[in-house]
Amino acid sequence: MSTWLLPESLADVLPAEARRIEELRRVLLDLYRTYGYELVAPPLVEYLDSLLSSGSSDLALRTCKLVDQLSGRSLGVRADMTPQVSRIDAHLLNREGVTRLCYCGSVLHARPAGLLSDRELLQIGVELFGHAGHEADIEIIELALESMGRAGLAEARVDLNHPGVARAILDADPALAQVGETVFELLSVKDRPALEGLQQRWPEVQSTTVDALVALVSLYGGADVVDRARRELPALPAIAAALDSLETLMRALPGHAFSVDLADLGGAYGYHSAAVFSIYAQGWHEAVVRGGRYDGMGREFGRARPATGFSLDLRKLSSGLPPAPLASAIRAPWSSDPALLQMLRALRDSGEIVIQMLPGQSQRLDEFHVDREVALEEGKWLVREIH
Amino acid sequence: MSTWLLPESLADVLPAEARRIEELRRVLLDLYRTYGYELVAPPLVEYLDSLLSSGSSDLALRTCKLVDQLSGRSLGVRADMTPQVSRIDAHLLNREGVTRLCYCGSVLHARPAGLLSDRELLQIGVELFGHAGHEADIEIIELALESMGRAGLAEARVDLNHPGVARAILDADPALAQVGETVFELLSVKDRPALEGLQQRWPEVQSTTVDALVALVSLYGGADVVDRARRELPALPAIAAALDSLETLMRALPGHAFSVDLADLGGAYGYHSAAVFSIYAQGWHEAVVRGGRYDGMGREFGRARPATGFSLDLRKLSSGLPPAPLASAIRAPWSSDPALLQMLRALRDSGEIVIQMLPGQSQRLDEFHVDREVALEEGKWLVREIH
Repeated sequence: MSTWLLPESLADVLPAEARRIEELRRVLLDLYRTYGYELVAPPLVEYLDSLLSSGSSDLALRTCKLVDQLSGRSLGVRADMTPQVSRIDAHLLNREGVTRLCYCGSVLHARPAGLLSDRELLQIGVELFGHAGHEADIEIIELALESMGRAGLAEARVDLNHPGVARAILDADPALAQVGETVFELLSVKDRPALEGLQQRWPEVQSTTVDALVALVSLYGGADVVDRARRELPALPAIAAALDSLETLMRALPGHAFSVDLADLGGAYGYHSAAVFSIYAQGWHEAVVRGGRYDGMGREFGRARPATGFSLDLRKLSSGLPPAPLASAIRAPWSSDPALLQMLRALRDSGEIVIQMLPGQSQRLDEFHVDREVALEEGKWLVREIH
Repeated sequence: MSTWLLPESLADVLPAEARRIEELRRVLLDLYRTYGYELVAPPLVEYLDSLLSSGSSDLALRTCKLVDQLSGRSLGVRADMTPQVSRIDAHLLNREGVTRLCYCGSVLHARPAGLLSDRELLQIGVELFGHAGHEADIEIIELALESMGRAGLAEARVDLNHPGVARAILDADPALAQVGETVFELLSVKDRPALEGLQQRWPEVQSTTVDALVALVSLYGGADVVDRARRELPALPAIAAALDSLETLMRALPGHAFSVDLADLGGAYGYHSAAVFSIYAQGWHEAVVRGGRYDGMGREFGRARPATGFSLDLRKLSSGLPPAPLASAIRAPWSSDPALLQMLRALRDSGEIVIQMLPGQSQRLDEFHVDREVALEEGKWLVREIH
């Protein structure tokens, strides 16, 4: 096999695209900084137990394993940075009260998440720990929306859901205690016939439960879904609280288009505990940003903490944007003339891109457009347009 | 074992330090951009065969292996990005003439390179392909020196060497054709007695070879080593050419302190083909930057190309700098007053860091120093100093 072939669903990022991703990274990290999010960088690999402490089987399947030559223990290459940042908050910083953290790094998936997905993502995100109120969720959603704006994406829709609704229905029926995961899966794929036939499989399941689950499958649409849910679902306190949450968030963020899908249990890795959101951009089929509340993840690291946050894949974000314009550059001859070298230094210090042409220098550049040159005219070096 | 423990020689980078690394990354990538280096980002993992195509056994030992779930083949987590960038130049860009590329990404080592080394490095570097002349090496060394200056390090010394000198001695003696690697190792550790006794182990080795190898061991010191080498080493054309190279580089970079060590064969991964350099900073025991010429690596990817470049570890660089001053920040109350929100937006747009205090907000911040606050005075929001 040729040494230049790359494994399936892994790719090089080439000039121009790589620089655009770098610019997006800077714009977003600087945005998060202006909100007081402190930057952290957890390691690329950790003990598998730490990476998978949330117990998500989806995350476990997606994590590449290797053996630690120093300890003999199993390591994983991170497939998601959120549990790592949660560990840093819970154990390492160990602060009382609110902590805001942001991060940006490569994550690797053992298998691509979708048909067209890459296995390497450049995950960027923010997490807000130590605050259980809606204020924290509102700040997070606003920051996610502003991230899209800064990246130049027209926002189409914020999709909200709340795993607490389905969980309340399951928790209310003791017959479902052991089979919750299966029912969650049926809900995720909106398998209405299977839900209607639930009592054939488990006769002890109550009819009110079946009715509620079937109702849940069609509880998706605009913001009015919350009102419909109040009418169609059982009057359980946990359901009312979850619906109130969604309503509070929508009221606090006027001027945005919302959709609600109560059967979508959100969060690929299943660690979310309350309101969850996905943001879709105009012309995008997949969500650009995913986030939500995941209280309690820190428990595995010694300290259960309220937590909410979001993340997105900078590579996917960049690939969905129109091509970036090339940066303008100046070409210069190779010479050891001190006057030329001084001029080049001054140009570069002012931010100009100056390419000294070595013998055989390629004329093909993917990141730069050479539109000026340094030339000697009447004994003086000057910059002139190339015609 | 506790889930919050990290594997040996792997660490989280915490606030303030992580931000400083981010700033260094930007300063250096922007510097390389002003010289016309185009940014690329090869994948975190590749087929092991591609990563190890240079044949370096040191690199093979240092590369973490895992199994590709899609192909069943062996993958490696990159331990060095230079071979990847060489592959991109040789095969993917496939340009005629000169190509300048830069990169920055995490690399992982199966075992730490030294007692105090981390296993995860943030490698940043530049590579100049397609030019075999000294001009390219001079540009690379200048850029390495400027990198140190931009990072705020006082440069102490540029250490130069050239594996071509030792190679010429070995190539001139047919008796050493099979045992070159062993002799290279003896030279690397400057094992003079073993070199003196070479004929006891391999009687066919010529006495002139033994003399030359023993002389090589003491050929280290200041720039005058080159002259000493001309007197003490055999008058082989390859040796003369290598020494001329070193002299040309030193002459082209006046005002820098040079040391030369002809027995040091440089380049941890053994792929260097000609002049090699390490730059030491004042107060540093290890080299900050390593680089040099490695013509021919592209051959494994279908196209042998002249190549020269350097790289450094941004994490190590940052850890050797004095602590960065904390960024100044403003605290603001949580409120949905539109006048306040508008003010916060304007402050953040101007680059200010504004932290809205949620109930229970921690007073401890590692990256920011809160020295101002937004407060309501006589019905108007304003920013005031905190005393």
